[in-house]
Amino acid sequence: MSRYKIIIEYDGTNYCGWQKQPRLPSIQGKLEDAIKAFSQIHAPVQGSSRTDTGVHALAQVAHFDLDTKLESGKILRAMNFYLKEEAISVLDCEEVSEEFHARFSAKKRYYKYIITNRLPPLSIDINRSCHVIEKLDVKKMQKAAKLLEGTHDFSNFRASMCQAHSPIKKVDYINIHQEGEKITLEISASSFLHNMVRNIVGALRMVGKGKWTNDTIIKLRDLKEKNMQKFTSSPSGLYFIKVDY
Amino acid sequence: MSRYKIIIEYDGTNYCGWQKQPRLPSIQGKLEDAIKAFSQIHAPVQGSSRTDTGVHALAQVAHFDLDTKLESGKILRAMNFYLKEEAISVLDCEEVSEEFHARFSAKKRYYKYIITNRLPPLSIDINRSCHVIEKLDVKKMQKAAKLLEGTHDFSNFRASMCQAHSPIKKVDYINIHQEGEKITLEISASSFLHNMVRNIVGALRMVGKGKWTNDTIIKLRDLKEKNMQKFTSSPSGLYFIKVDY
Repeated sequence: MSRYKIIIEYDGTNYCGWQKQPRLPSIQGKLEDAIKAFSQIHAPVQGSSRTDTGVHALAQVAHFDLDTKLESGKILRAMNFYLKEEAISVLDCEEVSEEFHARFSAKKRYYKYIITNRLPPLSIDINRSCHVIEKLDVKKMQKAAKLLEGTHDFSNFRASMCQAHSPIKKVDYINIHQEGEKITLEISASSFLHNMVRNIVGALRMVGKGKWTNDTIIKLRDLKEKNMQKFTSSPSGLYFIKVDY
Repeated sequence: MSRYKIIIEYDGTNYCGWQKQPRLPSIQGKLEDAIKAFSQIHAPVQGSSRTDTGVHALAQVAHFDLDTKLESGKILRAMNFYLKEEAISVLDCEEVSEEFHARFSAKKRYYKYIITNRLPPLSIDINRSCHVIEKLDVKKMQKAAKLLEGTHDFSNFRASMCQAHSPIKKVDYINIHQEGEKITLEISASSFLHNMVRNIVGALRMVGKGKWTNDTIIKLRDLKEKNMQKFTSSPSGLYFIKVDY
């Protein structure tokens, strides 16, 4: 048996997300189809992180096993050939030891989130950033972001269907910078809860709009069961950047 | 009569270009449809520059006339409302004097061209940059670009259907820079011939690939009727940036 690690880029707009679902186009499903097309083998593909519908990836990592040893450059070309109608491309492929596991060996995960802060609707970046009309105060967002760095119980930032055992996560950093109408947030942690990044962005956006204060963020962080109105931001601005192993 | 100047952003991928054509979706046509939808008037829209199929714009400029005076903010909102299904958005609208003409008053036009220089196929930027597989030598391209700055007869860089009276144009600058796998070319002139930017990029790309030398560029620039193989680069990497008046 040979194990292969692949790095994948995708535009998540027209997919139901990473994970396979019956009768819906998924990234995982399209990758397994591509492997089957050149190898005639159904090899389950294990990703480092399950991205949601509409979320993009610049360097998602996954692994799969084949009975026969194949040249990794050949796998790369074959997969891209069978993915040519899809908004998915395989950037790299290498043979790895059987101890490597795309999900469990991951040490750090990195995301970025792009907001286009302007009045007119989006055209070029419509599915590739999150459109916010109300003027955001980036300095306030930067200060509030610092409150969510470090180790906290992120129960109020997880989706109701989140399957993680523990809501306690350590956020390494949340950096926010602005360049013209684009506001970019960068975040890293060893792992995230379901919808955690989108909820963090949504909460900071409320601060940027002046609707919430740092106190709201502190309460949300420290008190359980706030039962607040949903504040999840759109998937279109979210990019899974990379994984460290 | 009131004249209005609008600034427009668009993703050119699914349009036949700026100019109206029978039974094809054009930027000009969609703007005229939007104006008609809120004003019941067919007002011809005059653009600063006719972009081709697949070419994008960050701040194209156009003007049109209405019999009745309307608040420009209302026009902006109404146009964007009727354009909401399109990859076109109106960024600004202001009333201008009747002497203003989007095309004839233009003093400088600016374009940029984005190349993604890598082996794997594109996913996220598939229609928004030009994919070049062969490794490009950016330093060689930068040197060759200097040969096309200034006033020259650009006959060998114009499309066969180009309608301009004179092939002589003055290129203010051609700047090329690289950031990771992205190579961006920026160019400005008071006006351009049809396909001129795409042909300049195509020629510099041949230099970057090592297939052409500076001498090829000089011959192409100074000798008429070279009858060379076509070297027009793809429209997907081209962005009309802005106009100075």
